Amino acid sequence: MNLQVCPIQHIPEIDPSVGLGAVLKKGLSQSGLDVVPQDIVAVAQKVVSKAEGRIVQLAGVRPSAYSRLIARHAAKDPRLVEVILSETRRLVRLRRDVLICETRHGFVCANAGVDRSNVDGGHSVTLLPLDPDKTAATLARQLGCGVIITDTFGRPWREGLVDVAIGSAGVPPLLDFRGRTDGYGYPLRVTVLSPVDALAAVAGLVMSKTSRVPAVLIRGFEWTPVAENTQFLKRSPEKDLFR
Amino acid sequence: MNLQVCPIQHIPEIDPSVGLGAVLKKGLSQSGLDVVPQDIVAVAQKVVSKAEGRIVQLAGVRPSAYSRLIARHAAKDPRLVEVILSETRRLVRLRRDVLICETRHGFVCANAGVDRSNVDGGHSVTLLPLDPDKTAATLARQLGCGVIITDTFGRPWREGLVDVAIGSAGVPPLLDFRGRTDGYGYPLRVTVLSPVDALAAVAGLVMSKTSRVPAVLIRGFEWTPVAENTQFLKRSPEKDLFR
Repeated sequence: MNLQVCPIQHIPEIDPSVGLGAVLKKGLSQSGLDVVPQDIVAVAQKVVSKAEGRIVQLAGVRPSAYSRLIARHAAKDPRLVEVILSETRRLVRLRRDVLICETRHGFVCANAGVDRSNVDGGHSVTLLPLDPDKTAATLARQLGCGVIITDTFGRPWREGLVDVAIGSAGVPPLLDFRGRTDGYGYPLRVTVLSPVDALAAVAGLVMSKTSRVPAVLIRGFEWTPVAENTQFLKRSPEKDLFR
Repeated sequence: MNLQVCPIQHIPEIDPSVGLGAVLKKGLSQSGLDVVPQDIVAVAQKVVSKAEGRIVQLAGVRPSAYSRLIARHAAKDPRLVEVILSETRRLVRLRRDVLICETRHGFVCANAGVDRSNVDGGHSVTLLPLDPDKTAATLARQLGCGVIITDTFGRPWREGLVDVAIGSAGVPPLLDFRGRTDGYGYPLRVTVLSPVDALAAVAGLVMSKTSRVPAVLIRGFEWTPVAENTQFLKRSPEKDLFR
């Protein structure tokens, strides 16, 4: 098995009136990529959010007293903090200018995934899609392959960011090796890997290396479609030692 | 740029008397893979640890009173706990049977990377290599390409494990996009990605899918050799909100 990650070229600037599935299909075709069911399309959160109109103009935001307090502490725009907190179920950590939030979906990440700088010169912000797994399922039907929606998250103990899956359809979120051996007859230590996150990581890297490539095709990964999605990656607070 | 991940076949069971570089060279050649300097070989921690004799027989371990206390709390073998703590600089969390440790290298992971089940039916354990960056540098010289040593780590807030880099040579640990735009003219939000970790993630996934493949060749990733290694991925405790 050789795994390949191919940039999907020719994806125009997304706006909410354009169907993302159609844009991806056209980009795939123009990139010379014929999709087969075993393929996986990974698409960046920012284009999903744009396609779904998950954009807020900061000029129209009225920050609460609490948001103004946090904003003063974090030296951030109070309107931005208001938007971040409106996307937040639980503030996991606050120190200096870093807000680590549990989003309403249950993801833990900086600023609840609210992204300032990439739209409209910073006067507006993108929010995470409302239901990225649902979006992934829709795209999977339209494209006829597996789908992963990626976003770039930090890690508590390591510098640098990597992409993870915030939505998926078909592709296993978890792959269970319990009871399997390593080929030399020894039981495997690592029992549950996360294929969607491992694939999101390399997809994000390939996207980052090329301009105007917010999506890639992953080919050559052997997987059996599952009903599970990224819901299954969210560790419950009770099992969590760091929340 | 199409990125490819190719399993390196024909790698025999490693023992300390065999040079790992020679084994990998032979495996690459038998897999029909001619290495070029732009290639990257990713190799799993377990074979590096075996090649470097980082194996401890539990029968010879005498646990301290402290290790016996922790072992009782965690329902683990006191000798295993003794080995884990001897590899630990700081115990980050202890709850039920989970020990999250900062290793002497500065990595934060479960059980300080001590791996029970994969060697000798569980009567011995592997430890992380003493200096994985140094090993990676040696292998990079021998193979004439970039090298990443991978290990499989958990994540605080997400189920499932993914591979990260615990050693690297040549390949950038961090890739700085500050001041760059996304191709549509907007500044990039994500400023510093971790290529070695993103590549380790997909490498680990490909290794897991195939028996007896503890190493892969990564081809098609564009990178410029750097002197930095995984030292640069270790977040200092002062900058860490979760230690």
